[in-house]
Amino acid sequence: MSEPDSPAQLRQAIAQGLHTGNTSGLAPGYVQCNIVILPESQANDFLRFCALNPKPCPLIASSQSPGDPALTLLGNIDIRTDVPRYRVFRDGILDTEVTDIKSLWRDDLVTFALGCSFSFEEALIADGLEVRNISQGVNVPMFRTNIPCTSSGPFAGDMVVSMRPFRAADAIRAVQICTRFPSVHGAPIHLGDPALIGIKDVAVPDYGDPVQVADNELPVFWACGVTPQVALENARLPFAITHSPGYMLVTDLRNSHLAIM
Amino acid sequence: MSEPDSPAQLRQAIAQGLHTGNTSGLAPGYVQCNIVILPESQANDFLRFCALNPKPCPLIASSQSPGDPALTLLGNIDIRTDVPRYRVFRDGILDTEVTDIKSLWRDDLVTFALGCSFSFEEALIADGLEVRNISQGVNVPMFRTNIPCTSSGPFAGDMVVSMRPFRAADAIRAVQICTRFPSVHGAPIHLGDPALIGIKDVAVPDYGDPVQVADNELPVFWACGVTPQVALENARLPFAITHSPGYMLVTDLRNSHLAIM
Repeated sequence: MSEPDSPAQLRQAIAQGLHTGNTSGLAPGYVQCNIVILPESQANDFLRFCALNPKPCPLIASSQSPGDPALTLLGNIDIRTDVPRYRVFRDGILDTEVTDIKSLWRDDLVTFALGCSFSFEEALIADGLEVRNISQGVNVPMFRTNIPCTSSGPFAGDMVVSMRPFRAADAIRAVQICTRFPSVHGAPIHLGDPALIGIKDVAVPDYGDPVQVADNELPVFWACGVTPQVALENARLPFAITHSPGYMLVTDLRNSHLAIM
Repeated sequence: MSEPDSPAQLRQAIAQGLHTGNTSGLAPGYVQCNIVILPESQANDFLRFCALNPKPCPLIASSQSPGDPALTLLGNIDIRTDVPRYRVFRDGILDTEVTDIKSLWRDDLVTFALGCSFSFEEALIADGLEVRNISQGVNVPMFRTNIPCTSSGPFAGDMVVSMRPFRAADAIRAVQICTRFPSVHGAPIHLGDPALIGIKDVAVPDYGDPVQVADNELPVFWACGVTPQVALENARLPFAITHSPGYMLVTDLRNSHLAIM
């Protein structure tokens, strides 16, 4: 028997429709992943996009062959059922949200699992830092920047970032902690003046919820897993599937296993 | 024969009075040290001050026994002759500057060698970062802060910091690089608003020279080796000797050897 809150047990509940909520805070200690599912014909371009933009698109695993719904590196996974909510895109536009993709599965689909900020937020909290979006109980604020990604085939766009405010000493500590985790976005890419990366108002995020930034704090910005979703929309692919934001694939991989030192 | 610019050859020239200038940029690749020389009666309190305040006072080596002028861990050194310029303090006040301390040497003197920012500046430049005080050809600007050191016996005072301006991405990179070198002040202790650590005007340093900070840059602050000199002055010891700022002990230890990873 799986233990309560084990990733395998949670995925089983998700596959059976017993858990339909988001996965924030679930299965603590284990890696959760952003999911992108594409036809084989676009998969190589997307793989190259990830390789060229590793901070917003840190690839942790992908299908062994087209049509294979397993991700054996991450656990006993059926990607068609084990994510609580999926987004189906047609011609680059969100068409529908569903709770399984069995009826949509095709022999040419390739799955990509990308690292997610939940892993480094856990490491920050474990070190005693306050992660504002968690203490306020909201989604992290995310912003479009003017930092261009390196394009690959149809995949292109500016980097999306998430923001967490810290006092300077904690920001420095956050750089140290997150540097250990390159496969979940790694060190921040900016801190201080938001205008320098094209953000007009740090109180008005493009995605997620606003959080308070105190006078003695700096906004600290990390490359964000929404970036590949924007690149996917820009590519206007005939057909693509992703997870719904916050409704992640919960894996058997431990967060601590991602630390490079 | 020593090679040109080898630390041993440079120390020989210094001991013979052939090199009397500062040591900035000399013997590239090798560790230079701040020097503090105290009577044995105060040495334990000072050692404890360094242990309690490792960022401003990173101890690299000390005498094996009182009265011993060697520092064998750092090379074939006679501390009485191998520093280009010394400061002699009496009752906590600078009394005189001299080029050797043979006539002042006593059987109860203990030498402490502390890490110096030259080592991490070399690592920053090797990574392609511009270190402003070096590109402007001036001394690094240093500031008294309102951050108290942990006191030990008579040794007490606020931390002194050095400041180098960087764009945010380079500041983040500087945190990563300097984290590898804890024995030469390690990661910055603050960045951004100088007022938060008690600095009124970043254009008016308390020691060293001002450097330009561009609008798109953050001032980044490191714990500084002037901190123990201030603590020494505050302690009002009857007798103490230090190097003169910029006139360091050049050692046989390689900077790369200080990297913890």
